[in-house]
Amino acid sequence: MPHTQRKVLFMANTDLKILGLVGSLRAASKNKLLLHEAMRLAPEGLTIEHFDLSSIPMYNGDLDTEENRPDSVNALKEAIKNADGVLLVTPEYNYSVPGVLKNAIDWASRPAYHSVFAKKSVGVLSATPGLLGGVRVQVHLREILFGMHAQIFIHAEFLMGGANNKLDESGQINDATTTEMLVNYLTHWRDWLRSQQS
Amino acid sequence: MPHTQRKVLFMANTDLKILGLVGSLRAASKNKLLLHEAMRLAPEGLTIEHFDLSSIPMYNGDLDTEENRPDSVNALKEAIKNADGVLLVTPEYNYSVPGVLKNAIDWASRPAYHSVFAKKSVGVLSATPGLLGGVRVQVHLREILFGMHAQIFIHAEFLMGGANNKLDESGQINDATTTEMLVNYLTHWRDWLRSQQS
Repeated sequence: MPHTQRKVLFMANTDLKILGLVGSLRAASKNKLLLHEAMRLAPEGLTIEHFDLSSIPMYNGDLDTEENRPDSVNALKEAIKNADGVLLVTPEYNYSVPGVLKNAIDWASRPAYHSVFAKKSVGVLSATPGLLGGVRVQVHLREILFGMHAQIFIHAEFLMGGANNKLDESGQINDATTTEMLVNYLTHWRDWLRSQQS
Repeated sequence: MPHTQRKVLFMANTDLKILGLVGSLRAASKNKLLLHEAMRLAPEGLTIEHFDLSSIPMYNGDLDTEENRPDSVNALKEAIKNADGVLLVTPEYNYSVPGVLKNAIDWASRPAYHSVFAKKSVGVLSATPGLLGGVRVQVHLREILFGMHAQIFIHAEFLMGGANNKLDESGQINDATTTEMLVNYLTHWRDWLRSQQS
């Protein structure tokens, strides 16, 4: 095999995979747009995919068995298991985590402390129309992630306040500072993930 | 109309109505049993009803319009509107609020600050298998309730730790101290609600 082909193969194998989950089901969700921007701006070596949560039903412990667990939940757990990290991109609902996102987390969090989230690196981005950018949902999420023994990615919080003005009609971030913050976040995360691989 | 009949009619009209919501959908949920115990032990003048959350779909802002809002959500909002108080009875999932309960709250919380939860008196009970009894879910719930301008009922927290041993096979609380705490909670709530009525 020629050297160039080998190199491509090697890089493909070591690409870090991130699974993106969005806390809003709205078709025009700003947080979905933000995840898409993260996918577009991801640095070399980091690939982000979106797992749509709309097919995840309400958590019911009676159905959380090998025989009865919904297919969509099995797919979510498998996707988290196979990812190097999980990126939560979410609005803030009532000062906290949207039920949609928390419900998906509840399914994936079993068995407690030994789930697909245990020791998994998790990043958080939030976008809101208001000025605070989701600081409260991030506080609650970190507590929840700690409770699952997830590995919270340590970095300055990425809080997109005034999201209605920062994402233009094409869905792209129109603010250079915000773009730089997002690229920095993802680049540092990639570097941290690589440092843990050896 | 004889005096005795009048008195009965008067008392029936002034009965305080509480709507109970449970954070777990499991058939044998300890928190459902706890709500049933609250219904059974409710003091004179306080009636508690259970609204089953299993029919509430995932929140989607695109469907949250007069034309598209699901019937079950309209029924939930109407029931909260017509109640003198809402009793949340919930387990703790991953140090926080079960997605099932938060999702129902998200639907009922619109429009923000002016929803059926605004100024509504809300009580919280929690039961967990562990020793802490749900102290963390209650902390998160209070923040969420504050964010909706709900009127949190101020009282010593009702935390049922070791719930698997405190609710017997018939579903009744088998511990005199816990029963007394629950009766006290409900009686003080009734008295507070009455004090706000005139």
